[in-house]
Amino acid sequence: MSLDFDALTRTSGEWLRGQGPDSDIVISSRIRLARNVAQYPFVGRADDGVRSEIESLLRDKIEDLRADGRMNYVRVDGLDDLDRRFLVERQLVSRELAEGHGARGVGISREETVSLMINEEDHLRIQVLRSGFSLDECWNQIDAVDDELESEVTYAFSDRLGYLTACPTNVGTGIRVSVMLHLPALVLTKEIQKVFQALQKISLAVRGLYGEGSQAMGDFYQISNQVTLGKSETQLVDNVKDVVPNIVNYERRVRSALVKENRQSLHDQVARAYGILKNAQTISSEETMHLLSSLRMGINLELIDDLEMSTVNELFIHTQPAHLQKIRQQELDTAERNVARATYIRQRLSGSSFEHN
Amino acid sequence: MSLDFDALTRTSGEWLRGQGPDSDIVISSRIRLARNVAQYPFVGRADDGVRSEIESLLRDKIEDLRADGRMNYVRVDGLDDLDRRFLVERQLVSRELAEGHGARGVGISREETVSLMINEEDHLRIQVLRSGFSLDECWNQIDAVDDELESEVTYAFSDRLGYLTACPTNVGTGIRVSVMLHLPALVLTKEIQKVFQALQKISLAVRGLYGEGSQAMGDFYQISNQVTLGKSETQLVDNVKDVVPNIVNYERRVRSALVKENRQSLHDQVARAYGILKNAQTISSEETMHLLSSLRMGINLELIDDLEMSTVNELFIHTQPAHLQKIRQQELDTAERNVARATYIRQRLSGSSFEHN
Repeated sequence: MSLDFDALTRTSGEWLRGQGPDSDIVISSRIRLARNVAQYPFVGRADDGVRSEIESLLRDKIEDLRADGRMNYVRVDGLDDLDRRFLVERQLVSRELAEGHGARGVGISREETVSLMINEEDHLRIQVLRSGFSLDECWNQIDAVDDELESEVTYAFSDRLGYLTACPTNVGTGIRVSVMLHLPALVLTKEIQKVFQALQKISLAVRGLYGEGSQAMGDFYQISNQVTLGKSETQLVDNVKDVVPNIVNYERRVRSALVKENRQSLHDQVARAYGILKNAQTISSEETMHLLSSLRMGINLELIDDLEMSTVNELFIHTQPAHLQKIRQQELDTAERNVARATYIRQRLSGSSFEHN
Repeated sequence: MSLDFDALTRTSGEWLRGQGPDSDIVISSRIRLARNVAQYPFVGRADDGVRSEIESLLRDKIEDLRADGRMNYVRVDGLDDLDRRFLVERQLVSRELAEGHGARGVGISREETVSLMINEEDHLRIQVLRSGFSLDECWNQIDAVDDELESEVTYAFSDRLGYLTACPTNVGTGIRVSVMLHLPALVLTKEIQKVFQALQKISLAVRGLYGEGSQAMGDFYQISNQVTLGKSETQLVDNVKDVVPNIVNYERRVRSALVKENRQSLHDQVARAYGILKNAQTISSEETMHLLSSLRMGINLELIDDLEMSTVNELFIHTQPAHLQKIRQQELDTAERNVARATYIRQRLSGSSFEHN
């Protein structure tokens, strides 16, 4: 079994459909579990032979998984650089897995909701990623996958500590719960700083679109737990789950106030963003993110009425460098990508279906 | 006879039709003559009674002029502030006439090619303004008007100095010859500085869109003679006429080089300008000039093919504050004008005819 990359450029993951609960502000919900196979050294201490053994063992289990239909499994070390970056942009593998070495791979479910990375920082990283504010569904889905695998594999587990992981920050539950929020109004009014401070006090982390170490682009913020030990998985899910409605309501209140007090200038910002995206002949990734963010808010505030949210959500991903090159089926340097990006956006926004060449 | 301002907002002067020779770069050609009636003090030294006498005397002659069909004459001191500013924006009267005091007026020909100001700095200022590079036509036309008036009025004239004028810089011929050039490529490449230096050496002046003291906006530069004494009118016309083809060719060469070396980025600039103008909900006069300048160059370079040059030329004038308020038939503050301007531009660029309300 292998991935049909060409088909992937014509589709997008379930998490981009933009229809889940509170999807005007919550782009996606994500849970991942870190697991290691007992009696093997952690990946960082495993030589190439051991890594191959682990990859082979876990791949068999992943290919047999029944929880979410059959998985598409791909050996990441067998991919070229472009395909690896494509999977990162699509949020199916981490940068660390893409840039690692030795035998490693990823299993991906239909609709891309479940992905299982082998030989990332831990032997196994299970991820469930869904559209909108849907942490309960994520938890039920990942729990089922985890249970099914655990019936086949003996995980490294300590009665005192819980699941053992390569990095101490994951020990215990090995869980990371996160939501990706689109907060343009809080950014515009600089209220976002208050959100950061409040989250810090309750030990939640804030990151950009591509996780750890990445910058917040396009007004997207990922909020996640930092503690993994001393609480149950569902308690940790609830910690994130409880805080999200507050931020969502805060963003909505500020949007309403902006529309009320400054409708003209907000409409202007949104309309100009739309005008530039529909006409530019060359555009950087950064400017694209910035303008798409305005468009996204504009659709939610009904300042734009001829554009689907799913189109905008898809454009965020499809205009990334590796996606553009896969769509064009050729390697492109930065200047060529900027032209290809502008062309692709114009075609998508003019309503015509994009011709793959 | 009086001006129908409402009708004027639906039309535009001949000089905006954008069809004269070299009209890709030369917006308009203009000649004005300064004249004073013998045996009257200059305007600056005339009291209200004398000004009224001069106004009455010259108005009669202007209304009888046969040279360009009958003139529409309007008493500028009888106009409200908005109408006066409207005539300034339209290049039919100077700021000085608009902001002066006492009896004063302007006669305007059909198609707005000829205008005759009474009691500006001099008793009479005759102007001919035409589309494109057409100084010979301007000269023939203004010479005929001047001759016809001179057969009726005794001008202040000295055998030694020539025509006497209020300001010594106009003494002799009383002529100012100017062309309005659109030089976006020379501005973009900063080559415009070389043009300035070359013009300075041959005693030609460079000014912005609204003449003396005004800033160059939208990459428009007015080039005119500074010397009025010691040469004949036709020599002074030729002085300006001779230099224009050099500047026009320079601008064209730089445009070609830009298109050749940097077509993508030039096309991008033009397309974005078009996109913003077609979509903005509020826009300042300055940004409008800047974007229209890009559009104008884009049409000339065939980067835009669905827009008439005359539309762009008109937008430069019709988006000015007084024109917008006349079109809307109401007084508007800056913020309201910015919204009205954006609305008007969107309607003109979407191809729909603008509804006067």
